[in-house]
Amino acid sequence: MFNSPHPLSYLDSIHAYLREDWGTQDWTTASVPNRPMGAKVVAKANVVVAGLEVAEQVFRAVNATLEIRCLVHDGDAVAKGCEVMRIQGSSHGILMAERVMLNLLQRLSGTATLTRAFVEAVAGTGAKILDTRKTTPGLKLLEKFAVRCGGGFNHRLTLGDGVLLKENHITAAGGIEAAVQAARRVSPNLIKIEVEAETLNQVQQCLALAEVDGVLLDNMSLADMAQAVQLRQASGRRVFLEASGNLDLTRARAVAETGVDFLSVGALTHSAPAADLSLRMELE
Amino acid sequence: MFNSPHPLSYLDSIHAYLREDWGTQDWTTASVPNRPMGAKVVAKANVVVAGLEVAEQVFRAVNATLEIRCLVHDGDAVAKGCEVMRIQGSSHGILMAERVMLNLLQRLSGTATLTRAFVEAVAGTGAKILDTRKTTPGLKLLEKFAVRCGGGFNHRLTLGDGVLLKENHITAAGGIEAAVQAARRVSPNLIKIEVEAETLNQVQQCLALAEVDGVLLDNMSLADMAQAVQLRQASGRRVFLEASGNLDLTRARAVAETGVDFLSVGALTHSAPAADLSLRMELE
Amino acid sequence: MFNSPHPLSYLDSIHAYLREDWGTQDWTTASVPNRPMGAKVVAKANVVVAGLEVAEQVFRAVNATLEIRCLVHDGDAVAKGCEVMRIQGSSHGILMAERVMLNLLQRLSGTATLTRAFVEAVAGTGAKILDTRKTTPGLKLLEKFAVRCGGGFNHRLTLGDGVLLKENHITAAGGIEAAVQAARRVSPNLIKIEVEAETLNQVQQCLALAEVDGVLLDNMSLADMAQAVQLRQASGRRVFLEASGNLDLTRARAVAETGVDFLSVGALTHSAPAADLSLRMELE
Amino acid sequence: MFNSPHPLSYLDSIHAYLREDWGTQDWTTASVPNRPMGAKVVAKANVVVAGLEVAEQVFRAVNATLEIRCLVHDGDAVAKGCEVMRIQGSSHGILMAERVMLNLLQRLSGTATLTRAFVEAVAGTGAKILDTRKTTPGLKLLEKFAVRCGGGFNHRLTLGDGVLLKENHITAAGGIEAAVQAARRVSPNLIKIEVEAETLNQVQQCLALAEVDGVLLDNMSLADMAQAVQLRQASGRRVFLEASGNLDLTRARAVAETGVDFLSVGALTHSAPAADLSLRMELE
Amino acid sequence: MFNSPHPLSYLDSIHAYLREDWGTQDWTTASVPNRPMGAKVVAKANVVVAGLEVAEQVFRAVNATLEIRCLVHDGDAVAKGCEVMRIQGSSHGILMAERVMLNLLQRLSGTATLTRAFVEAVAGTGAKILDTRKTTPGLKLLEKFAVRCGGGFNHRLTLGDGVLLKENHITAAGGIEAAVQAARRVSPNLIKIEVEAETLNQVQQCLALAEVDGVLLDNMSLADMAQAVQLRQASGRRVFLEASGNLDLTRARAVAETGVDFLSVGALTHSAPAADLSLRMELE
Amino acid sequence: MFNSPHPLSYLDSIHAYLREDWGTQDWTTASVPNRPMGAKVVAKANVVVAGLEVAEQVFRAVNATLEIRCLVHDGDAVAKGCEVMRIQGSSHGILMAERVMLNLLQRLSGTATLTRAFVEAVAGTGAKILDTRKTTPGLKLLEKFAVRCGGGFNHRLTLGDGVLLKENHITAAGGIEAAVQAARRVSPNLIKIEVEAETLNQVQQCLALAEVDGVLLDNMSLADMAQAVQLRQASGRRVFLEASGNLDLTRARAVAETGVDFLSVGALTHSAPAADLSLRMELE
Repeated sequence: MFNSPHPLSYLDSIHAYLREDWGTQDWTTASVPNRPMGAKVVAKANVVVAGLEVAEQVFRAVNATLEIRCLVHDGDAVAKGCEVMRIQGSSHGILMAERVMLNLLQRLSGTATLTRAFVEAVAGTGAKILDTRKTTPGLKLLEKFAVRCGGGFNHRLTLGDGVLLKENHITAAGGIEAAVQAARRVSPNLIKIEVEAETLNQVQQCLALAEVDGVLLDNMSLADMAQAVQLRQASGRRVFLEASGNLDLTRARAVAETGVDFLSVGALTHSAPAADLSLRMELE
Repeated sequence: MFNSPHPLSYLDSIHAYLREDWGTQDWTTASVPNRPMGAKVVAKANVVVAGLEVAEQVFRAVNATLEIRCLVHDGDAVAKGCEVMRIQGSSHGILMAERVMLNLLQRLSGTATLTRAFVEAVAGTGAKILDTRKTTPGLKLLEKFAVRCGGGFNHRLTLGDGVLLKENHITAAGGIEAAVQAARRVSPNLIKIEVEAETLNQVQQCLALAEVDGVLLDNMSLADMAQAVQLRQASGRRVFLEASGNLDLTRARAVAETGVDFLSVGALTHSAPAADLSLRMELE
Repeated sequence: MFNSPHPLSYLDSIHAYLREDWGTQDWTTASVPNRPMGAKVVAKANVVVAGLEVAEQVFRAVNATLEIRCLVHDGDAVAKGCEVMRIQGSSHGILMAERVMLNLLQRLSGTATLTRAFVEAVAGTGAKILDTRKTTPGLKLLEKFAVRCGGGFNHRLTLGDGVLLKENHITAAGGIEAAVQAARRVSPNLIKIEVEAETLNQVQQCLALAEVDGVLLDNMSLADMAQAVQLRQASGRRVFLEASGNLDLTRARAVAETGVDFLSVGALTHSAPAADLSLRMELE
Repeated sequence: MFNSPHPLSYLDSIHAYLREDWGTQDWTTASVPNRPMGAKVVAKANVVVAGLEVAEQVFRAVNATLEIRCLVHDGDAVAKGCEVMRIQGSSHGILMAERVMLNLLQRLSGTATLTRAFVEAVAGTGAKILDTRKTTPGLKLLEKFAVRCGGGFNHRLTLGDGVLLKENHITAAGGIEAAVQAARRVSPNLIKIEVEAETLNQVQQCLALAEVDGVLLDNMSLADMAQAVQLRQASGRRVFLEASGNLDLTRARAVAETGVDFLSVGALTHSAPAADLSLRMELE
Repeated sequence: MFNSPHPLSYLDSIHAYLREDWGTQDWTTASVPNRPMGAKVVAKANVVVAGLEVAEQVFRAVNATLEIRCLVHDGDAVAKGCEVMRIQGSSHGILMAERVMLNLLQRLSGTATLTRAFVEAVAGTGAKILDTRKTTPGLKLLEKFAVRCGGGFNHRLTLGDGVLLKENHITAAGGIEAAVQAARRVSPNLIKIEVEAETLNQVQQCLALAEVDGVLLDNMSLADMAQAVQLRQASGRRVFLEASGNLDLTRARAVAETGVDFLSVGALTHSAPAADLSLRMELE
Repeated sequence: MFNSPHPLSYLDSIHAYLREDWGTQDWTTASVPNRPMGAKVVAKANVVVAGLEVAEQVFRAVNATLEIRCLVHDGDAVAKGCEVMRIQGSSHGILMAERVMLNLLQRLSGTATLTRAFVEAVAGTGAKILDTRKTTPGLKLLEKFAVRCGGGFNHRLTLGDGVLLKENHITAAGGIEAAVQAARRVSPNLIKIEVEAETLNQVQQCLALAEVDGVLLDNMSLADMAQAVQLRQASGRRVFLEASGNLDLTRARAVAETGVDFLSVGALTHSAPAADLSLRMELE
């Protein structure tokens, strides 16, 4: 439903994460007998879950014979105490997978949980929550998926799947029109062009250019954003408007109510606290 | 001073991060002329800086001819508005490095900034702040470095450079003594053995075992921690005591004042908000 | 000018290609003295050149001290006999780079040369030549660049930077409208949606959907394509039209004259014969 | 029968090709339901098939549960309309594998088809068709296999498994004899030495050297080649003779009839057009 | 029992070793029919076996359907003629795995065999045999495991899991005390500090420093080692003493009888001759 | 002179070896000041040196600014006490490179030293010393180079650059002739075919087959080997003869005097003791 990335996209990384965590060898686990045990992953707070399939792949990478059962789905909001996953099998396998699995699941669920809070803050306004490129290096694909689990939408994932002309680019190009036309000339055919605007005047310029598909309203006041929406309507164009700039939960609804189409929020991926989930083992 | 990791340890990752950010190609930058420009990295809040050498390596990986000057050092606490780095050269190089460089610098500085807050909270007590294995997958070495920049100390970096017997291990081994002796038998010679204790009784057991080098006091009350310190003193052993379990800034000093040697704090690496730093470009 | 890919995107591949060509070791070159020599790369037919920077990187990867001078630019049409590159330095370096360098330069120039022929065939009609995803595995980025050198434009480079709903997708989704709406829901914000149409009726359906950005006219007759152009005009929509299906040089102009915006040609990358270029060495 | 390469030799490449094709994620496939479907790979022209096992590995890499049945063998000449492979299972799996699978199968079958044409052109003469090192970077092993499927033979695969002293080497070494003796001294014991000759005089020199195992007749006239065959016979040596230099189908038989042992043809791998094969899906 | 490394730690290396051994392709095996055969691995001398699980992974990497049965355990001392492993299945699979499998098994068993000789030489003295960092590049983890199979113990595996201050470090730091205190400051919390001493005076200095966990007695006479043991006892410290420096089998017992805790022996990994094991195939 | 492998063939491995040796980080070196120092690599026994360029690459990989001077050449026999290399620069760089550099240099020089002993043992007989495929996994290319430095010659480096039909192959193929003809059919054109013979009768069979280029005399008596030489002479064939089977230094000369062309010795690479070389640092 949230189109989780294909394991080929991240399985090598999981192997690398495990090696990073183990170092030379897990001497602690080697000190105890390897026996069949059970384990469960439990939410220790209210969280929106993201990354169950990833967590499962971590377990399987360590020990392909572990039995794993997911009790909820990615995107589910679960209450404190809820059991989200059960694992059964080799104690060594569970112990060697535990930390990397939790580090991923907690981080992704943290992003999903924060995203959901923003989505709920703007519920009913028609505005959508977008992420940014301010992701954790190496984890972009999974974090973008976590945003979708939280109910948000993805802005471009890479510099290759969208043009966003910011102030620096416009300055270097000598103006919006020159930059936009160059962008259309060099970019692949199925990629849209968005332009960052800091003033209503710039919004107007963008609306006048047929090649512009969207406008990013950078750090604008609520009044200016509302005005930008008016300008767009007056233009008869299908250009989308995206509000950006240190948006927090307290301000999100007011921004959404100006009529913009999207709010983009860097904090979803760069500052979401880890969701509190833990693994408990039990002797059989 | 904080013994930053050798670039061989992370340069391949930087290349991967850049490719992850670019996708197929940076069409936006390709839309504007490549010309000499200047840029500076500026703190937009009070932060403890960590990752300047890493940031420099990102720029060099994109364009080896960029001139880069660091104006502060890793570990420096800088005030809002402070310029921390200047870059001079190809605008395309700067634009293609910007986001990955900031994603790393902001994250590492975020960890250093939070660590420093904990260090200051316990200042004068003799207690030291430790990190945990709850790091971002793929970024462990750099995050551990960021903790040192903040004034903290590293707990083990991997399962290969320290034994920490937790409750699950002890259960599986059938008791503390069996687990400890097995650990000493299987582990390399220069690695210490730490045991997690949830009760004072367990602390006692640990103090009675010559092979135990440290005890982790798991989620204990202040009174119990103080008592554990007493037990240690009474034993005449050089065993270290580490307080652990959802430590936050408000509680840290009281914990430190019980006389424990270390406080370990998972949030340093799993929930530190990104430090606010940005890059500004200027036409020459 | 044609925004060649960043070396970080292909340098590891060049290393792999060299190792693939060398096997264990180049015994032939090891049999002769290593001495300073000169070499030139010469066109043995009329070709459009693409890949000079790539060729230069091959030489540098083998021997960083070689002096290399490009005498023409990527995208230049040169006549038989034209010298395109001069190399000066270690004979071992030149000999060990030669074959991989030529294999790349000949292939990329082959694609650029064929693309230029299509571009010239439709000159003056306003139609543009597009490539497809029918590229050589491993060489996509460089081949897409070669198409731009030839004067063509890139269709999407990957499945991640564009949605193209083909017949299979539409069948599975139960109709065009359902597929288009799902696509808009799951896809990142800056990606366009194109739909394959085999009949004019399907073209009509597409034009009625606001989320459709383009229509691929699959194997249509010239009359139907002309009709599709009419339908688009009647709709008042800015939807682009792309002609597709075994287009060859003899038919290209007639297709372009129907008024479609793009002709996409798989042969540019899957069947372009290698351009004839060779390397000649000279004793100094 | 044609000793297809071991999957360990190319499976990592297949994973890389899939990631190259997908980019971040396949949004189009994510837009449609995942359901059981059937598919078949069909020849749309007369082709010699090569790469079925490779194609199968592509499908399995995407989805290990797909059922795959090959209906012909590598090396079979099949007529237009022939079904060569059936696939059954997850529609998402089939759709995400399709393009990479076809790009490989079409390319390899293209090489096999062209090779077969050369083999048939020289049928009955006793001459054999050889490939060259003019392969597609990254695909050498598979293309060499495709040549064998077409009925051709492999010249050396890498610089490590054969010595071929060309004009440049001879010049640098100061003559054929010096080069040959050096080659025998430095090369591993099971590798043969071949020398390029442009004149009959050079052929004579080669035949006089015991260490020479073969002579490449470079761009010689038919008369000279016939004369070289005479010289070889007169020498009583078991030295093989290989004709080389822009051989095409129209000239191949006449060359073969001169009595040379081999014709080496660069076009087999650098300019073979893709064989026309396609995949069709069906609802179950 | 000897906590063999997790396959994730070495499986990629096994793939690389196979590719290294095969080069482009195994033409010899391709020359013979692929049929079911049996094979056994036999000791051709008295050896201590190490690496059976690794050997099994080599077979499985080549052909996952081979049936493999280990007839002894890692760490077992077996007599000449003993069969240690039986393999059943595809002859091609067995032939393509044979050499790499044996190269690993013979090397690891060679190290285990030599280690066992040292262990037996000091039997009853209480001293333990340690390895060093003088391992084969790329094989460290497996060789450290082989030492354990032989009955030895691991010194640090990497520079990251132990501090060993040698003469060079002490000179650069300006004395033992400065070096030790710096080491404690920069090193992770669970890592011990060992100091190399060349004189009894230096041993004394080490014993006076609370942060020192062990002392390496470098190339000392038997008398000095005995004296160092006395000094340690007099100090009441739990500091371990390690004898080092060109220890051979003839001298090991006398060294052990001085009362040192450990003897470290570089030859275990840098100069152990390969154990004599071979593979024999049988038609079924 | 001994055609050392190109750094592209082993530089990635050197990086991996350094990371393997460092683990997370070199805490010992981090404990001491980084200052300019000198160092020299000294032979502590009589050795034949091999691997100086490799050693230099290790130093450069750690610190590109180190000044390195080789005082002898690969292949030189040097006496105990001889200084072979001088290094000048960052003490941290030298310390972090030392162990991996020595592990490689000692191992390669060990192989070169043992090879030289065999070469000298057969001096004057005309026989040459060959290595085998019994190399250290991962180090084949460098060890093969070390054999050449010792004065030996390389047998095939991989299964891809030579056919050697052993008893198992012949059994599976149903006889020598069938195996040889199949081998010639499937193998690339520049690869020779060698057949293992255990009896003089088999030698005869081989000599009767035109496609056989060499015969391996497996574990034959001196008398049989002499007889095989006679048979070869009687045949008038240029087939080479290689003696194989647990050859040691005491028996080598007698074997060589039978008139065989080659002696192949597995011990050169699987059991050569490390050559004794060490690094000494000096304050400037």
